[in-house]
Amino acid sequence: MRSSPAWIIQKKRDGKELTETEIREFVTGVVSGEVADYQATALLMAIFFRGMSLDETVALTQAMLESGERYTLNEVPGPKVDKHSTGGVGDKVSLILAPLAAACGLRVPMMSGRGLGHTGGTLDKLESIPGFSTALDRERFGQVLSKVGCAMIGQSARVAPADRKLYALRDVTGTVECVPLIVASILSKKLAEGTGALVLDVKVGNGAFMKTRAKAAQLAKALIRVSERMGVPCRALLTDMSQPLGYTVGNALEIREVIEILRNAGEAGTSCDLKEVTLALCAQMLELGGKARGAAQGRKLAREKLDDGSAWRSFRELVREQGGSVDAVDDPDRLARAPRQLVYASPRKGHVGRMDTEALGRLLVELGGGRMKATDTVDPAVGLVFHRKLGARVEVGEPLVTVHHQDAHDPERLRLQLGRSIEITRIRKPVPKLIIATVGGQLS
Amino acid sequence: MRSSPAWIIQKKRDGKELTETEIREFVTGVVSGEVADYQATALLMAIFFRGMSLDETVALTQAMLESGERYTLNEVPGPKVDKHSTGGVGDKVSLILAPLAAACGLRVPMMSGRGLGHTGGTLDKLESIPGFSTALDRERFGQVLSKVGCAMIGQSARVAPADRKLYALRDVTGTVECVPLIVASILSKKLAEGTGALVLDVKVGNGAFMKTRAKAAQLAKALIRVSERMGVPCRALLTDMSQPLGYTVGNALEIREVIEILRNAGEAGTSCDLKEVTLALCAQMLELGGKARGAAQGRKLAREKLDDGSAWRSFRELVREQGGSVDAVDDPDRLARAPRQLVYASPRKGHVGRMDTEALGRLLVELGGGRMKATDTVDPAVGLVFHRKLGARVEVGEPLVTVHHQDAHDPERLRLQLGRSIEITRIRKPVPKLIIATVGGQLS
Repeated sequence: MRSSPAWIIQKKRDGKELTETEIREFVTGVVSGEVADYQATALLMAIFFRGMSLDETVALTQAMLESGERYTLNEVPGPKVDKHSTGGVGDKVSLILAPLAAACGLRVPMMSGRGLGHTGGTLDKLESIPGFSTALDRERFGQVLSKVGCAMIGQSARVAPADRKLYALRDVTGTVECVPLIVASILSKKLAEGTGALVLDVKVGNGAFMKTRAKAAQLAKALIRVSERMGVPCRALLTDMSQPLGYTVGNALEIREVIEILRNAGEAGTSCDLKEVTLALCAQMLELGGKARGAAQGRKLAREKLDDGSAWRSFRELVREQGGSVDAVDDPDRLARAPRQLVYASPRKGHVGRMDTEALGRLLVELGGGRMKATDTVDPAVGLVFHRKLGARVEVGEPLVTVHHQDAHDPERLRLQLGRSIEITRIRKPVPKLIIATVGGQLS
Repeated sequence: MRSSPAWIIQKKRDGKELTETEIREFVTGVVSGEVADYQATALLMAIFFRGMSLDETVALTQAMLESGERYTLNEVPGPKVDKHSTGGVGDKVSLILAPLAAACGLRVPMMSGRGLGHTGGTLDKLESIPGFSTALDRERFGQVLSKVGCAMIGQSARVAPADRKLYALRDVTGTVECVPLIVASILSKKLAEGTGALVLDVKVGNGAFMKTRAKAAQLAKALIRVSERMGVPCRALLTDMSQPLGYTVGNALEIREVIEILRNAGEAGTSCDLKEVTLALCAQMLELGGKARGAAQGRKLAREKLDDGSAWRSFRELVREQGGSVDAVDDPDRLARAPRQLVYASPRKGHVGRMDTEALGRLLVELGGGRMKATDTVDPAVGLVFHRKLGARVEVGEPLVTVHHQDAHDPERLRLQLGRSIEITRIRKPVPKLIIATVGGQLS
């Protein structure tokens, strides 16, 4: 009776600390079916209310990690460092960062997810490059990683099956927003890829999962503590997600923007916020990977490798090695393009005062460019191009957004939705800081 | 999305009050299967932590009550009053109380449960009378009730199916000990029987569900408030369960004790605590049913009807009408009897200082006289007869308990278990008060 599922639930319910064995037995039981789903959700809700200690969270992460396949990547030489983002709208950072960090001498073994709800996913973006395959097997993953310096794949069904099951249950039982459960979910998948260090981009704002700086910092700290207890040095940036990152939202459109930055990085006028976040994250990765002494030196190296075209060359090589059309990235007009464009103009003179970033992310889903459920298919062509960002001065009738859509969408409805999601104010409101804080870093 | 199960769970999780509609939809969904069991248990755990308002508890009780069949008993004349006990060890009160209250002019439409865990059940006790049927249909239930003044049946599967489902889930997810859930579970079944008023016997002590007076009082108050909001006047006694009630534990043994009291009530030496609790509860029932002005007058009437044999005649009539063997109750030696008796004697001189009542209840289950799960069958013959109760002075070697058991039980092991469950102290400890408090009663 002592370690039956019901007993473990009661122990947590009463605020007592679970042992590593109890947590492992529970997780193993959830995957095998010995622990019923209705017991799993009761424990999840008890954890929601009682929290978990560091030891418990480490044990949970470990048990979830061990529920599936785990790469070690011993055959790949060089410092292996990866980045994980908590998710946002227009967040295409990985697509620039992975080849950039590779060009700087790191190895980036990146396993990513697909878009879900209002946030996009790296896999969907990559797959809008014709032929690009994110389903490499273990051997090929190592080969591409060794050759290019980065490889970008999807999580196979064999990685952390406990997380897949628990996440599906959390999603329908109000137990998603719980720090120890989020930590275990992220790290059980991320640490399966065999990275040696990890940099986190914890998004903050109305387009992010964490709406406030305090909550984002709490999550970042928990992620860092657990990652380090599991032997993977980790630090985090808190970055702004109170507007879409860069100028585009939508899979093929975002690939265009990525190519634009990688090719013409040295020139003026390319996305500033996107480039800034990418460089800041790369600087942290380089420091963690021992390629730079301090973030400032890391940023300088990253800037050089972006400006001199090295990152662009790594990106092309990545596309080629993963089966994608290099012609399409050399000539982005070959990427998918939606048949219709609708320009949404400013209804008044003033400044871009506020964007409802989550609503803009949901608008992409409505256009067909995202998913409400995991089985939905994604239209790579549709999306939004922003001409003005927060704080910009605008005139009446000045284009704010171009919507790339399929025939089926009612222009009036689209305009109404954009009007509700983008607020034009008479007085210029202060624009949130882009890089809000660095968390961790006492280890370097 | 607004009233999806996930939304309702989140609302309760965040401490907000659920509406009647939300609660009804959830309960209906649990029964129909539209709400998954893993969502039901997440809500139950959220309720465990957040509690429920009076309005919410009433709505939950109502929804569970409406999930099944409900009797109205309009064809039965006279004041209908029932009693419910929260369960204990040796609690055979209903078997005396129902015919006694009937003899006093009330109508007692009693639906009972079976024993589970360490507490016994009225149905199991009744069924140790050969032929006694607790499975009367609706029509026959009304006939027996009209004729005898009481009828004692089991809850059919059609009564409160929502409770059956939710209780099974609570039992394995650490959500049993939660006042609003207990209240809804008890009242959704009890109010289905069509009683006009209700007296509660809330047990307190180490053999009861509620171990402390404070918790028992909290439960009693909640039960009374919800019952009265649902139109059924209600009051409660808190009574002691820090030792088995009466002198016997075990189904046929308890029937013998009941017969002893009913037949020889006027004589000295019959179980005092059992008789006292029964009379106190009957007094409350008579007051609620309008047969007495105040509890003192009620007690006087009850005492008369017990002493003059009226209650005994009602009991015999009940047995006959429900198909039981009147010969067996007239001659209790015809009831089942276990092949072996083991006498446990006091290991030292002193006083009976403490009994682990729950352990004694579990010992009955081990002997075969109770259930660990609902599908277990029960041996009517086995049980325990206590020769001394709390506070009694005992000599070395003086018999304390006689165990009635089947061949399979190891005498040494039984002695060890009894030795651990009954403490003999040098100094006499104070004996807990039998009738601890009366709760409610402002209505009469």
